[in-house]
Amino acid sequence: MRALFFDVFGTCVDWRGSVERELERRGLPIELAVAWRGEYQPQLETVRSGARPWTTLDVLHREALDRLLAARGLEVDDAAELNRIWHALDPWPDTVEGLVRLKRAYVIAPCSNGHIELLVNLAKYAGLPWDAILGAEIAHAYKPQPDAYLGSVAALGLEPGEVMMVAAHNGDLAAAAACGLRTAFVPRPTEDTEATADWDIVATDFLDLASQCGAPV
Amino acid sequence: MRALFFDVFGTCVDWRGSVERELERRGLPIELAVAWRGEYQPQLETVRSGARPWTTLDVLHREALDRLLAARGLEVDDAAELNRIWHALDPWPDTVEGLVRLKRAYVIAPCSNGHIELLVNLAKYAGLPWDAILGAEIAHAYKPQPDAYLGSVAALGLEPGEVMMVAAHNGDLAAAAACGLRTAFVPRPTEDTEATADWDIVATDFLDLASQCGAPV
Repeated sequence: MRALFFDVFGTCVDWRGSVERELERRGLPIELAVAWRGEYQPQLETVRSGARPWTTLDVLHREALDRLLAARGLEVDDAAELNRIWHALDPWPDTVEGLVRLKRAYVIAPCSNGHIELLVNLAKYAGLPWDAILGAEIAHAYKPQPDAYLGSVAALGLEPGEVMMVAAHNGDLAAAAACGLRTAFVPRPTEDTEATADWDIVATDFLDLASQCGAPV
Repeated sequence: MRALFFDVFGTCVDWRGSVERELERRGLPIELAVAWRGEYQPQLETVRSGARPWTTLDVLHREALDRLLAARGLEVDDAAELNRIWHALDPWPDTVEGLVRLKRAYVIAPCSNGHIELLVNLAKYAGLPWDAILGAEIAHAYKPQPDAYLGSVAALGLEPGEVMMVAAHNGDLAAAAACGLRTAFVPRPTEDTEATADWDIVATDFLDLASQCGAPV
């Protein structure tokens, strides 16, 4: 094993808590957070299906926000700024320490549906010490499309079996495994809380993951 | 200013000293280092001109190595390994400390003709703390083609004027300036040793660059 790829939204960072706090600060209903995220997969599907060309999450997030606000008869003065909350999400308590340990022994990179700009801003905000920013934008393919995983593997000049995908989503891991990647499941309270298949590693958090991967303390 | 882009070969790392040492260790003539690097721009030009499709530096470096060895009647047992020296070049003494300081205030990324794999390996080897790996492979364009700069700027969602190109090569800075980027010249003994134009910043090394950019110590 040479590299670990990480899902970001939900696996590395707590999108729900961060978005809810930002909504609350504006006096908006916090149920909008889950509704906003709920638009995500149907939106991605319009790109995956080819119905619309490559479109970044900034555009998709903003379209969903405007639609959700309009449906509730709500208005905000700073929709553009509110939309940027997706660039500034809090890490889970174990995320940074686990990544720092894993980085000592492996190449670590996001393999996320976020675009490079968003992932760089998120890394600066949350202190995620990536070696490179990989994922959907490299291949112009959204997970779980195979190219999203295989394009990131190829960018590092590796074979799929040399890379482990880490996620709190069983579906993400199933797609990565089908591409030949190794798999590690880490439960998160807002995401999948149970492994539903026999993944190569099932860890309690990123510190446990680092230990199971033999990464030095 | 939001981000700094760095030329890597010669500006961040001492390719010449590192390659010469590796040649010497194998009992090969050290003049091969400069000859090897001398093949570089003519090779890139075959890709820039469209005469050949996108090709990574690993392939170009290996072709040049084989040609140079053959021309001298030399043989090596481990040409593939020798070719990997370009993934493990020593940083200049001020490089890492300067980058660490600049990273506290700005996004820092290579804007190099190296491909992602090479730049990630080089960063791991030399301790270069990049926020993202940008450059030629993002745009499939080799510097000084405008897309190599502008594709990296676009990947961060920035305007060219929000980014400063840092290089020990006046030609690299001229091309970046023509794209609207800011420019900083840092002399290196194996590269250009004098600024030949009125760049936004002329620094003695990366520590001076960090100070001139107001990056915290």
